Amino acid sequence: MEFSSKLLERAVNEMAQLPGIGKRTALRLVLHLLKQPKEQTEQFTSALLKMREEIKFCKKCHNISDVEICDICSNPSRDGSVICVVEDIRDVMALENTGMFKGLYHVLGGKISPIDGVGPSQLNINSLVEKVKSGAVKEIIFALSSTMEGDTTNFYIYKQIKDCEVITSTIARGIAIGDELEYADEVTLGRSLIHRIPFENSLKNM
Amino acid sequence: MEFSSKLLERAVNEMAQLPGIGKRTALRLVLHLLKQPKEQTEQFTSALLKMREEIKFCKKCHNISDVEICDICSNPSRDGSVICVVEDIRDVMALENTGMFKGLYHVLGGKISPIDGVGPSQLNINSLVEKVKSGAVKEIIFALSSTMEGDTTNFYIYKQIKDCEVITSTIARGIAIGDELEYADEVTLGRSLIHRIPFENSLKNM
Repeated sequence: MEFSSKLLERAVNEMAQLPGIGKRTALRLVLHLLKQPKEQTEQFTSALLKMREEIKFCKKCHNISDVEICDICSNPSRDGSVICVVEDIRDVMALENTGMFKGLYHVLGGKISPIDGVGPSQLNINSLVEKVKSGAVKEIIFALSSTMEGDTTNFYIYKQIKDCEVITSTIARGIAIGDELEYADEVTLGRSLIHRIPFENSLKNM
Repeated sequence: MEFSSKLLERAVNEMAQLPGIGKRTALRLVLHLLKQPKEQTEQFTSALLKMREEIKFCKKCHNISDVEICDICSNPSRDGSVICVVEDIRDVMALENTGMFKGLYHVLGGKISPIDGVGPSQLNINSLVEKVKSGAVKEIIFALSSTMEGDTTNFYIYKQIKDCEVITSTIARGIAIGDELEYADEVTLGRSLIHRIPFENSLKNM
């Protein structure tokens, strides 16, 4: 792409660094900002800058928060002895939307992924192990995505806490509610047979 | 979507104002910026702000430019008597990529579109009509997109310059090179019959 303006080119190149945004889309977005009043660009950039500079992470669960201890961790009606281990804030939001979980979260900030250069030391794993070793935790629920990286991360943490007195579980894998059996992949279908549940239990929360 | 942080929420809402970016995508992009070094967000926002504040439009063709008269308009080897009328800078870039056009451009900045609240007065139409009336232009080539808005804009301009001594043309509409006939829409196929070209002419520039 050849640009008639260096200012435009720089803006497009910066926009195209966002994941999933190609050069063409970046140009479309930047031209949109040019057509809108100058104030929109000012508000947009100041919101991003302010967030990047002032954002805090909860000291207990490492979730994004505007205060030292987030609303979930500081809620006295939640059960601090059950901790759900997730990758990032989107998983917390998804789980909170279900309204099914009354424990606390622990946000790892990613998954172990050598290909992306993410090792255990870059994740919030040590503080989780310390929490477990302190004896205040009864159950750890792994809720990472069902990928090789997710499984690796689960197992890495499990090895460090398996000698502690703590129950460990993972969220159920199986056929999604509403899914047709014939379109399910073999691995999921096979595991859903092995981990079948008593029919009476499956009637809960319907 | 419920956010645990107002800073995050504001950043996501601003990001989601960009066209084609929904709330989920906006959250993904904002979280990406949070994972990257602070400098990336600073460079990104400063590039956008600087562009929005300092960008200039060429005084002759209204294309985006860093100088008063853009590189194309100030190029003495280009033919100022042929003017190609386009919607925005992307069309200029696309046409320049063909290497087939040696005239100048006139960037309207949009199309007449009552639904979007865009009338003729918001577009760079008057300056085009003045250019034509000054007598320095021999041919006007309309290269707007082939939509109702594009056709309306073409016709609006045509009405104002049809009494001047100027040739008006539009770029050819027809079956794209490499396209299968059976998948072409009826209107395009029908017009490609009406506006058929002598076979010898079709061999040019192959």
